[in-house]
Amino acid sequence: MTEIRQPIRYGMVGGGLGGFIGGVHRIAAAMDGEFRLVAGALSSNPEVAHASACQLGLPADRSYADYRRMAAVESEREDGMQAVVIVTPNHLHAEQAKAFLAAGIHVICDKPLTATLDQALELYRVAKRSDRIFAVTYCYTGYPMVREARQRIRDGEIGALRLIDVEYPQGWLATALEETGDKKASWRTDPLQSGPGGCVADIGTHAYHMARFVSGDAVESVSAQLTRFSPGRRVDDDVQARLRFAGGAQGMLWASQVAVGHENGLKFRIYGESGSLEWVQADPTYLWKSTLDGPRQLLTRAGAGVGNGSLRHCRTAAGHPEGYLEAFATIYTEAAEWIRAGEATAENLCPGIEDGLEGMRFIDACIASSNQDGAWTDLG
Amino acid sequence: MTEIRQPIRYGMVGGGLGGFIGGVHRIAAAMDGEFRLVAGALSSNPEVAHASACQLGLPADRSYADYRRMAAVESEREDGMQAVVIVTPNHLHAEQAKAFLAAGIHVICDKPLTATLDQALELYRVAKRSDRIFAVTYCYTGYPMVREARQRIRDGEIGALRLIDVEYPQGWLATALEETGDKKASWRTDPLQSGPGGCVADIGTHAYHMARFVSGDAVESVSAQLTRFSPGRRVDDDVQARLRFAGGAQGMLWASQVAVGHENGLKFRIYGESGSLEWVQADPTYLWKSTLDGPRQLLTRAGAGVGNGSLRHCRTAAGHPEGYLEAFATIYTEAAEWIRAGEATAENLCPGIEDGLEGMRFIDACIASSNQDGAWTDLG
Amino acid sequence: MTEIRQPIRYGMVGGGLGGFIGGVHRIAAAMDGEFRLVAGALSSNPEVAHASACQLGLPADRSYADYRRMAAVESEREDGMQAVVIVTPNHLHAEQAKAFLAAGIHVICDKPLTATLDQALELYRVAKRSDRIFAVTYCYTGYPMVREARQRIRDGEIGALRLIDVEYPQGWLATALEETGDKKASWRTDPLQSGPGGCVADIGTHAYHMARFVSGDAVESVSAQLTRFSPGRRVDDDVQARLRFAGGAQGMLWASQVAVGHENGLKFRIYGESGSLEWVQADPTYLWKSTLDGPRQLLTRAGAGVGNGSLRHCRTAAGHPEGYLEAFATIYTEAAEWIRAGEATAENLCPGIEDGLEGMRFIDACIASSNQDGAWTDLG
Amino acid sequence: MTEIRQPIRYGMVGGGLGGFIGGVHRIAAAMDGEFRLVAGALSSNPEVAHASACQLGLPADRSYADYRRMAAVESEREDGMQAVVIVTPNHLHAEQAKAFLAAGIHVICDKPLTATLDQALELYRVAKRSDRIFAVTYCYTGYPMVREARQRIRDGEIGALRLIDVEYPQGWLATALEETGDKKASWRTDPLQSGPGGCVADIGTHAYHMARFVSGDAVESVSAQLTRFSPGRRVDDDVQARLRFAGGAQGMLWASQVAVGHENGLKFRIYGESGSLEWVQADPTYLWKSTLDGPRQLLTRAGAGVGNGSLRHCRTAAGHPEGYLEAFATIYTEAAEWIRAGEATAENLCPGIEDGLEGMRFIDACIASSNQDGAWTDLG
Repeated sequence: MTEIRQPIRYGMVGGGLGGFIGGVHRIAAAMDGEFRLVAGALSSNPEVAHASACQLGLPADRSYADYRRMAAVESEREDGMQAVVIVTPNHLHAEQAKAFLAAGIHVICDKPLTATLDQALELYRVAKRSDRIFAVTYCYTGYPMVREARQRIRDGEIGALRLIDVEYPQGWLATALEETGDKKASWRTDPLQSGPGGCVADIGTHAYHMARFVSGDAVESVSAQLTRFSPGRRVDDDVQARLRFAGGAQGMLWASQVAVGHENGLKFRIYGESGSLEWVQADPTYLWKSTLDGPRQLLTRAGAGVGNGSLRHCRTAAGHPEGYLEAFATIYTEAAEWIRAGEATAENLCPGIEDGLEGMRFIDACIASSNQDGAWTDLG
Repeated sequence: MTEIRQPIRYGMVGGGLGGFIGGVHRIAAAMDGEFRLVAGALSSNPEVAHASACQLGLPADRSYADYRRMAAVESEREDGMQAVVIVTPNHLHAEQAKAFLAAGIHVICDKPLTATLDQALELYRVAKRSDRIFAVTYCYTGYPMVREARQRIRDGEIGALRLIDVEYPQGWLATALEETGDKKASWRTDPLQSGPGGCVADIGTHAYHMARFVSGDAVESVSAQLTRFSPGRRVDDDVQARLRFAGGAQGMLWASQVAVGHENGLKFRIYGESGSLEWVQADPTYLWKSTLDGPRQLLTRAGAGVGNGSLRHCRTAAGHPEGYLEAFATIYTEAAEWIRAGEATAENLCPGIEDGLEGMRFIDACIASSNQDGAWTDLG
Repeated sequence: MTEIRQPIRYGMVGGGLGGFIGGVHRIAAAMDGEFRLVAGALSSNPEVAHASACQLGLPADRSYADYRRMAAVESEREDGMQAVVIVTPNHLHAEQAKAFLAAGIHVICDKPLTATLDQALELYRVAKRSDRIFAVTYCYTGYPMVREARQRIRDGEIGALRLIDVEYPQGWLATALEETGDKKASWRTDPLQSGPGGCVADIGTHAYHMARFVSGDAVESVSAQLTRFSPGRRVDDDVQARLRFAGGAQGMLWASQVAVGHENGLKFRIYGESGSLEWVQADPTYLWKSTLDGPRQLLTRAGAGVGNGSLRHCRTAAGHPEGYLEAFATIYTEAAEWIRAGEATAENLCPGIEDGLEGMRFIDACIASSNQDGAWTDLG
Repeated sequence: MTEIRQPIRYGMVGGGLGGFIGGVHRIAAAMDGEFRLVAGALSSNPEVAHASACQLGLPADRSYADYRRMAAVESEREDGMQAVVIVTPNHLHAEQAKAFLAAGIHVICDKPLTATLDQALELYRVAKRSDRIFAVTYCYTGYPMVREARQRIRDGEIGALRLIDVEYPQGWLATALEETGDKKASWRTDPLQSGPGGCVADIGTHAYHMARFVSGDAVESVSAQLTRFSPGRRVDDDVQARLRFAGGAQGMLWASQVAVGHENGLKFRIYGESGSLEWVQADPTYLWKSTLDGPRQLLTRAGAGVGNGSLRHCRTAAGHPEGYLEAFATIYTEAAEWIRAGEATAENLCPGIEDGLEGMRFIDACIASSNQDGAWTDLG
């Protein structure tokens, strides 16, 4: 008899009403039926926390004003949460994650891992001593055509890599939005909450992780220039970096939050000795492939000619666009597989704490390099 | 105190494992937390029905081998299903829907409404006598930028309409796929299951509904040409039609299943006296707007300049693509609002049985016109 | 010793300053060094004619107030014009062309051939009795990627043709521009000058010729609907037609001058049993190719994988865009080859008077069909 | 009485049959009727020179085996050449240009100006002492929409500039093409002919000039990384640079000849405090404009909303694509205006020897910076 697969019970820290990313995580977690929300410490403001829990259908006794209490109580319940989703500002991640790990609860944490590299290193040590899984939601790697690109590069389809170009321009911080009371802008530009990196931490790490994920190659050192274009801004809002990959490839990375006209322009172009691949997050259905001697090819999600590396992450037939929520859901579904399996597998590409820590090293190296006028700096 | 909103309990008829559209409906129903699957008659094959129910986490006693029994049993349970989702071949819709209406259960039915116009007329009469809601999942109208286009046209932004061009090319039936045992192709090309219309019913009705939905104008008559390009095919695989709208606009409609290279190319272009709008389902983020005397504008989902007509249907910020499943989920969420409200509202654009019936009239008129070499035929 | 190839000496009728198409013809004729302007009857207004000739560097004695005198004088000069380029309104083409043919001068005439089918038939008879060449500048077929498409279809690359879709939307006549004194609009909407067809003649014939040229197939009959959207307009400004091709393919043709947002949107999509091709005049570098089972391919002018059918018409390397003037120049260069060879060759695809006459039959059939509510009408 | 404007008589050095760029210059020079080829020293190989002259219709006595003799003889003829067009490998430019300047003949020289900065400085001194004009054919700035962008930036339409991103990827040197005997590849990768810069000189200077031209801002210093990806290549085939502009903007420049899949991908994106502009050479009709708070706008050549800064350089109406040859012709026509006026004017944007010299300084600074691991280097 087929066993019924029960969803993993999870609680959420942060993500109360009015925010953006909490709802995204909840839809992503629910999409494939792998997770069910059972508890929440949804806001540091108790009223917001309660109202949010109500609206989400949580029973009153599982809406917590304090995440520590949630960890304590839920770990004692027979039907308690098995995993926590952390969607708070960066500077809170480390303490929160440690509390849940200590309570024997799996952690799914938004990026960047922490506010500072020191926090990240400490959290990393704690997590490695734990037998719980620790996922970091670099969500963009969940797109099927990102998986397709990664697989083709691993298969040698474009030859040894030469150039890895990744960019992530946004325009929403072109003006001093943080001075208008905008909540999302305020914490992201406050070094106490976001850490010393602004743009480099918020989206630069996404771009960095994407370059690493798709290329499969390690980064040895970085030369970076961080800029604060908006007068009075307390953190960088633009980062331009060169990367040296272990395999000899050159990397170009640009992330910006003052690039007027871009909504969320994550993009990569990867050039090998015999071909290239290009993907743009805003139009995630498409993967362009070029070769040395034929016309360009436009590969489409679930379309003709794509491989199992992407097909197994598709929910709909070709021509029925999947988007950001679906990509995010794939990360969640892989986290679920990881939790159920109890250990990482080669096929499961869910980002973990190593990826989170590496992102923090990237931020740190960029800041150090920029402070020395772009001097090449090892990632450590 | 805020009341907790409980999901609507639903059962599904059809949609067993191995199919495509059942899973789509389930994800769409679950996405906004408005529906919960509690019962199923998931296949006419009892083994498939049971295995499917198991995998979906349904308890054994709510997996039914027969939809009539499901209607009877569930309508007696206190926690019984409140709505049914019908995702079977067209010729089964009418009887199934009537059984659930008779049991006092709301109906959400895939398109086209039925296999024949007679079935549709009969079902329509039954549904109108019922106090249950009847939704038909013309899912493509759930896209935010389709809503944006509709609202702008209603607001007079492009002036009186002149040309309404809608096309829906696919290529998957370019060869005689139905002769290879492909299940999806087989029933769609079998007049006993699909009805007398092939392409015109399967996707022509989507295109027709889109033209009607966005323009807000009624169609008076049609001149159509149906073709069977694939040798031996028993239904049309291509339809070209001209439409005469009540407001004076001319319509052009083309749907095809032999247009090699198209995956699912639903698209509209609507031209008014002072502007035009263009949208393509494969890239649903974008709505092109043209005016008499300025540059073209590229409106984006949740982006700068869009109105509440689309914004209220967005789940994510601009630049985070939403796709087919989200559009479909919007139809479900509107169906939920409709069920909760007990009656239709002006703001709720969920397609109903009138739309389903009109689609059947369109199929009928196209076939009649084509049989008379394209003679103009009233929709009746 | 290599012989020096001298440019062909030509005179122009019409094309004075202030117009558009005269300058286009002059640049196109000069681009490959195959033609040199030596005489002109550039305007029916003698002052404009003289001023235009001056600016173009023509000596005073070769600027004529009257085209008949130009034909007479030039045909007597040893260094007289060898060819005439006719760029006047449609109703003047026939008499002017006949005068030059009678004087033994080759004719290069803008499209449509004449204002009426009767004029065209008469001119055709005269031209066929002459030993001079008669080219009609359906310029869009000069684009390299149009040639590439034609060659691939002839080579069977997409199989037997099923659907031939061609459209040519423009928006410049969306308002009653002819009532504002706009010269270009005025004659094109005046039946005495343009003939009974408006949009169908001005750009519908381009679209028709393109469908014929690329497919290589003959059209047997047409079902058309002509509309005058702009109140008070004296000719059609929109045409929608179905075409029946001799080889069994179905044609869809739409041309419009009230489609706001389109500048000059000539486009074709051709679907065969095993593939399809798509080309858009506004982005003429690209030819999309689809097959039954692989990703779409983006062929580029002079790029990887293209054949000699297009390469021999390229002036620049891939990535250096060629445009409308280059396409037009190719027609001129083929006209020059034709003149030098004294007879048509299989490789020379310059449109001739047969194409011009067929365009007039197309206009006539569309009007007749439209007057009978879209009845299928033979092209005759 | 209107004076007849005679074309400027020019001779060409280099550009014999079999090459690419000579023909491009000849078409560009002829397109607007401003130049006429009267003499040539078309190849250093006398047979090729003669055969080329024959085919181009030059009389035997004006085909020269030696450019010095051409300068001497032509400067004595009453109908002698007034300008020389130099299209030889870089290392020959300086001596050739000086010879013609000494003979009182205007110079139109292909880019980069010379092979070395020393040659450039010396040539610059000579040219400044001469009263002849000296144009350098940075042809890409002749595109109408590049002019449109420049004008809009000058008008403050996007505010103070922040980011100037320019890239110029090509893929044709991804393999060791120079080892196959390919002539174009051979001299470009030979430091004796091209100078110490490879990619940085051949196309990096185009990208640099474009950034300067459109932004109107000066570059103070550069941090560059030059790479030789192809094993055994003697010059760089990829350059990545950061630029510091005098006005505070940050520049990003990438040029590559090993970026498989790119034909000729020159592109710029310029971000100001209140808007941005984007243009791609392969699709030169379009200029994207973004603002802080509205939808993106797609400006088109000669289309709605464009200004005189681009309109006066258009030869055809909107929707009739102009390309590379037309852009090149605009540079020639401005050179003609310059020659006729005898001095530069504010409206005439033809690049001159200052631009050529600055390009050489850019190459030099990039090489110096790259040799010091990307140290910031003044342009001098």
